[in-house]
Amino acid sequence: MESSLVYSQSQWDIVLASFVLAGFALFATFVYLLATRRELSPRYRPAGSAGALIGLVASAAYLLLTVSWLSGFDFDRSTATFHPSDSVLQFRNAYRYVDWAVTVPLLTFELLFVSTLTGARARKNRLVLGALAFLMIATGFLGADTFNSTTGRLVWGLVSTVFFVPLYVTLLRTAFRSARELGEPAGPSLRRAGLMLSWTWGVYPLAYCIPFFFADSPGWVVAAQLAFTLTDIAAKVGYGFFIHAVAKARTALDVS
Amino acid sequence: MESSLVYSQSQWDIVLASFVLAGFALFATFVYLLATRRELSPRYRPAGSAGALIGLVASAAYLLLTVSWLSGFDFDRSTATFHPSDSVLQFRNAYRYVDWAVTVPLLTFELLFVSTLTGARARKNRLVLGALAFLMIATGFLGADTFNSTTGRLVWGLVSTVFFVPLYVTLLRTAFRSARELGEPAGPSLRRAGLMLSWTWGVYPLAYCIPFFFADSPGWVVAAQLAFTLTDIAAKVGYGFFIHAVAKARTALDVS
Amino acid sequence: MESSLVYSQSQWDIVLASFVLAGFALFATFVYLLATRRELSPRYRPAGSAGALIGLVASAAYLLLTVSWLSGFDFDRSTATFHPSDSVLQFRNAYRYVDWAVTVPLLTFELLFVSTLTGARARKNRLVLGALAFLMIATGFLGADTFNSTTGRLVWGLVSTVFFVPLYVTLLRTAFRSARELGEPAGPSLRRAGLMLSWTWGVYPLAYCIPFFFADSPGWVVAAQLAFTLTDIAAKVGYGFFIHAVAKARTALDVS
Amino acid sequence: MESSLVYSQSQWDIVLASFVLAGFALFATFVYLLATRRELSPRYRPAGSAGALIGLVASAAYLLLTVSWLSGFDFDRSTATFHPSDSVLQFRNAYRYVDWAVTVPLLTFELLFVSTLTGARARKNRLVLGALAFLMIATGFLGADTFNSTTGRLVWGLVSTVFFVPLYVTLLRTAFRSARELGEPAGPSLRRAGLMLSWTWGVYPLAYCIPFFFADSPGWVVAAQLAFTLTDIAAKVGYGFFIHAVAKARTALDVS
Amino acid sequence: MESSLVYSQSQWDIVLASFVLAGFALFATFVYLLATRRELSPRYRPAGSAGALIGLVASAAYLLLTVSWLSGFDFDRSTATFHPSDSVLQFRNAYRYVDWAVTVPLLTFELLFVSTLTGARARKNRLVLGALAFLMIATGFLGADTFNSTTGRLVWGLVSTVFFVPLYVTLLRTAFRSARELGEPAGPSLRRAGLMLSWTWGVYPLAYCIPFFFADSPGWVVAAQLAFTLTDIAAKVGYGFFIHAVAKARTALDVS
Ligand SMILES: CC1=C(/C=C/C(C)=C/C=C/C(C)=C/C=O)C(C)(C)CCC1
Ligand SMILES: CC1=C(/C=C/C(C)=C/C=C/C(C)=C/C=O)C(C)(C)CCC1
Ligand SMILES: CC1=C(/C=C/C(C)=C/C=C/C(C)=C/C=O)C(C)(C)CCC1
Ligand SMILES: CC1=C(/C=C/C(C)=C/C=C/C(C)=C/C=O)C(C)(C)CCC1
Ligand SMILES: CC1=C(/C=C/C(C)=C/C=C/C(C)=C/C=O)C(C)(C)CCC1
Ligand code: NA
Ligand code: NA
Ligand code: NA
Ligand code: NA
Ligand code: NA
Ligand code: NA
Ligand code: NA
Ligand code: NA
Ligand code: NA
Ligand code: NA
Repeated sequence: MESSLVYSQSQWDIVLASFVLAGFALFATFVYLLATRRELSPRYRPAGSAGALIGLVASAAYLLLTVSWLSGFDFDRSTATFHPSDSVLQFRNAYRYVDWAVTVPLLTFELLFVSTLTGARARKNRLVLGALAFLMIATGFLGADTFNSTTGRLVWGLVSTVFFVPLYVTLLRTAFRSARELGEPAGPSLRRAGLMLSWTWGVYPLAYCIPFFFADSPGWVVAAQLAFTLTDIAAKVGYGFFIHAVAKARTALDVS
Repeated sequence: MESSLVYSQSQWDIVLASFVLAGFALFATFVYLLATRRELSPRYRPAGSAGALIGLVASAAYLLLTVSWLSGFDFDRSTATFHPSDSVLQFRNAYRYVDWAVTVPLLTFELLFVSTLTGARARKNRLVLGALAFLMIATGFLGADTFNSTTGRLVWGLVSTVFFVPLYVTLLRTAFRSARELGEPAGPSLRRAGLMLSWTWGVYPLAYCIPFFFADSPGWVVAAQLAFTLTDIAAKVGYGFFIHAVAKARTALDVS
Repeated sequence: MESSLVYSQSQWDIVLASFVLAGFALFATFVYLLATRRELSPRYRPAGSAGALIGLVASAAYLLLTVSWLSGFDFDRSTATFHPSDSVLQFRNAYRYVDWAVTVPLLTFELLFVSTLTGARARKNRLVLGALAFLMIATGFLGADTFNSTTGRLVWGLVSTVFFVPLYVTLLRTAFRSARELGEPAGPSLRRAGLMLSWTWGVYPLAYCIPFFFADSPGWVVAAQLAFTLTDIAAKVGYGFFIHAVAKARTALDVS
Repeated sequence: MESSLVYSQSQWDIVLASFVLAGFALFATFVYLLATRRELSPRYRPAGSAGALIGLVASAAYLLLTVSWLSGFDFDRSTATFHPSDSVLQFRNAYRYVDWAVTVPLLTFELLFVSTLTGARARKNRLVLGALAFLMIATGFLGADTFNSTTGRLVWGLVSTVFFVPLYVTLLRTAFRSARELGEPAGPSLRRAGLMLSWTWGVYPLAYCIPFFFADSPGWVVAAQLAFTLTDIAAKVGYGFFIHAVAKARTALDVS
Repeated sequence: MESSLVYSQSQWDIVLASFVLAGFALFATFVYLLATRRELSPRYRPAGSAGALIGLVASAAYLLLTVSWLSGFDFDRSTATFHPSDSVLQFRNAYRYVDWAVTVPLLTFELLFVSTLTGARARKNRLVLGALAFLMIATGFLGADTFNSTTGRLVWGLVSTVFFVPLYVTLLRTAFRSARELGEPAGPSLRRAGLMLSWTWGVYPLAYCIPFFFADSPGWVVAAQLAFTLTDIAAKVGYGFFIHAVAKARTALDVS
């Protein structure tokens, strides 16, 4: 388990640095999208709001990851290594799922708010896809933490995948179809958001499978944490700016 | 008592995760409803303000629950269990009542602000129902913490119920009658808010009765904490969004 | 002294709960009055600002009281009692005076801003009554903490009363005279604010006299803390909402 | 040195109380001046912004002073005294200079923004006086902390005075000349701001000289801390409200 | 390494003071630029937003530096020295790179937003220069922390320089060419921003080379920390105010 291993100084440092980096980037995204909400027309403003809340919640989550990375280890100066501590707050990768349980439904809404879906159909899509997103993460948490044996991980991972597949397919289809319908200048930004979504969301299930194939080791933990952190920044900050560009372009069209 | 038991790692983890999840969802609700207040007409804006304050106070309460869950236990790595600590800040389920003493009156106002009641009748209803809500929680706290013997719990629970019954009946009657009067499109959202209120408010008195029927055990504590946390999210975040939908629909009607 | 006594669990708990409750209610008042400032006309807006700042400062003061209540005691699980700790931050009732030194002058201004006083007379009243309020609290602090022998307490309490009497009389006279002059609908709210002020401000000097008549005991400390806390909520939150109602009613009159 | 002395309970308490009081008053000033910026015309708004930032920075500085006053001492209950602790964060009066390095230039700007200086002359004055203010404080810090022998203190104090004299003279001259030029109603407020500046800025160099004449003692430390704290409130909060009154009066003149 | 040395009291103090000073100045910049965003026309507003976010992120970074400076050392009163502690959070100069990874791209954008580049060319420049900035810092971090041998430092420093050169040249060329094109009154401010950029950005690579030429010593660490801190203030606060002046001047031109 990631909290029972011994890390070298540069391993421990780069993980800490990546958490702080993600927290900075996400909190700045929150402040930026909140301050610029009024520049979007009322129809697309909810996309800005959703992006802002994603930044807020995710930066709070990185604060928790950072604090648990600090409190979960003790420093041994003589060997320059970081050992598991006795603190009650241990580092757990599974704490990321708490963030996702709130932000993945919001990422879903963010896209729907700038898509071409309208009225009752848009509302229904939001409800169904939001629920799928929440259930995908909640069941994933059970496999990654609560019933974390090989079987538990496998079974709950499969249950989670059952929610993942229709969610992923519908979102991508909506993104690319809307992008085509919108044309210039909003379309290309929406296409970019869809592409960003397609690869980032693929990283999480792959990372979930690491323990099936590789034994626990500090190197794998560091690699996985860096991958998660960079993917999170892409999936929230990068994607959020593409969605914001769509909202701005559509606002300009509606106004003129 | 919940603070004197020993929890396994997955038990302790899922409770922590649920507290953090509730804190994230409630704080995001605060920020969202505060930022969008101006989109409601002055008449319904107080409903948005009440919803925002509920999110703020309740997220602060979950921060306190989280901190006391951390400080109230020590981690034993060898057995992977969490034991009661000697810290002055012990975990107490009763700290939830402090949140409720502020938020349950506000939940009451939230509904009244979007109902069809107006003028002096609305003001009187707010005063009376707000007082009933506060007294229901204050007396419930006496039974759950201050005089927490079987008799004390029973007597104060009954006193609390005396405030509960007229409050619950009046609120639901107001919700459903107003929903009928409002018709499309505000009515259905108000009906949904009423339904949400009807089942969520029933969970709390039931959970209060657990100690009459079951002995203290880690399993029951975990189940009760998860139930409280999910019900709180439904009763504050879900209900708040339905109320917001009513306020938005009525704003649109008044404007057009 | 309150910091050298031993408290039972339910005694310690209810004091903590009351502090957290006051902090929540006062901070919510801050956020609400700050967010709604713009709904008051420029003339009465300072009343809203004063009310907001009172909520802010007082909630910070309750945070300090809460932290010192936590750090000032150690928990003994075997007897379920709370004993004085060795921490540098001991609980002190006198820390309340720091809050009052800022908020009592502001409470004075809050009333003057919605009264019928105008121009140079209003400015002079603000200056004189603000100074009386500050001096009343500063000298009271000397009696309650710095020179806290029976004689010191008596002498400084009398000095404080010398400032109290003209302040109290002028404020109540201004409130009731203005209420008469204003008539419906602002008058009755101002009368209610005056009544609220009249009894709440009487509680503090009475509580100051407890040590002259009763020996130190945990029961008296708990009673005094609950009385202070509930009176603070009435004198700041309740009174603040009455003042806000006056400001709103006068704004509506000026506009129409 | 202030951090190596033993304080009685009432000595330690009144210093703590004064720090918390200053923090409350300064933070309230920040919130008030920030919220009311828009009530000033664009020309005088920077004075409001400067006043707000002064309140923000200085309240953060008082938080640091408060925390170091807590962490720098241990409490001995048997003798009711406060002894130097082994904590890394010792109380240092010199930490006040960090606040001043930011706020004294801002206090300078605050006055210039509401004076009658305009255009290139105003800009040049801001640059020169801001630089003098910063250098005065930076060199004062070297004398009070870095080279704190009798000679070091003397030499650096004299260097600091070289910056002080032209700054003080120019500021007062600008204040009183502008006050004359402005006449009623802005003039008298500006005169009051000038008078406030004249005596408050005199207190700091005097306090700097205490160690030349008196040996270290708890009584002197307490007296100096109270003097600094009350002077800070006068020089920032009181002065800030006079400047704000000038800005408001000039805004009203420009508008009508 | 900076975290394994022993510092005298005045050495340790001046570093702490400089960190707190930078934190104050940067946070005040954040609040100021956020509050005044609306005074810029929509076209130049992103420059204000970028400046505000830089202030926010960098002040958070200085909070982290401050906390690690406190937690990384223990105080020995008998010798008045500060020794390395056993805390898990050690002081690391490399934590500055986390700030830079976010703020250096933003500093780049800040300049581009007020330059004369427009349309697709502006967007492309932002993308390319932002990426160069991020890669320059990320590879610099590898040399300063992850592979911090003499060879590692050299190799990664050279890789970083490969990104630095085109970035630096393009930015300066853009600044000075745009300054010429803009003429009075925006031009001179932009030229000043360019000059500020030219020398501040030169300090960082020089400081990176210190370990190639000088052995670790407390004196060098103190000098380097003071240099970094003052340069950071110049490169973010000073530069930010010049950029803001350009944005204000161009807004005034567009309006009139
Ligand atoms: C399919 C699947 C999963 C999918 C997770 C996803 C798709 C997460 C997306 C997270 C995002 C987008 C975060 C943004 O910051 C789990 C839960 C790992 C469990 C195993 C099966
Ligand atoms: C009748 C009754 C109770 C009712 C509690 C209720 C109705 C609480 C509602 C809380 C809500 C809505 C929270 C929202 O987040 C108590 C106090 C348990 C005591 C026993 C009797
Ligand atoms: C006369 C008198 C006093 C008066 C205190 C008052 C009037 C306090 C009011 C506080 C308020 C209104 C707080 C609001 O939250 C003291 C100082 C106890 C000292 C003894 C004499
Ligand atoms: C001349 C002189 C000094 C002047 C200090 C001043 C003038 C400080 C003003 C501070 C203010 C106005 C703070 C506001 O809150 C020092 C540095 C003590 C060093 C000795 C010589
Ligand atoms: C070329 C080079 C570097 C350049 C760093 C720069 C240019 C940093 C700029 C920082 C700023 C502007 C911060 C503002 O606050 C490194 C990374 C030291 C590594 C060695 C080679
Ligand atoms: Na929105
Ligand atoms: Na640790
Ligand atoms: Na409202
Ligand atoms: Na613990
Ligand atoms: Na005001
Ligand atoms: Na304690
Ligand atoms: Na300004
Ligand atoms: Na201490
Ligand atoms: Na912007
Ligand atoms: Na330390």
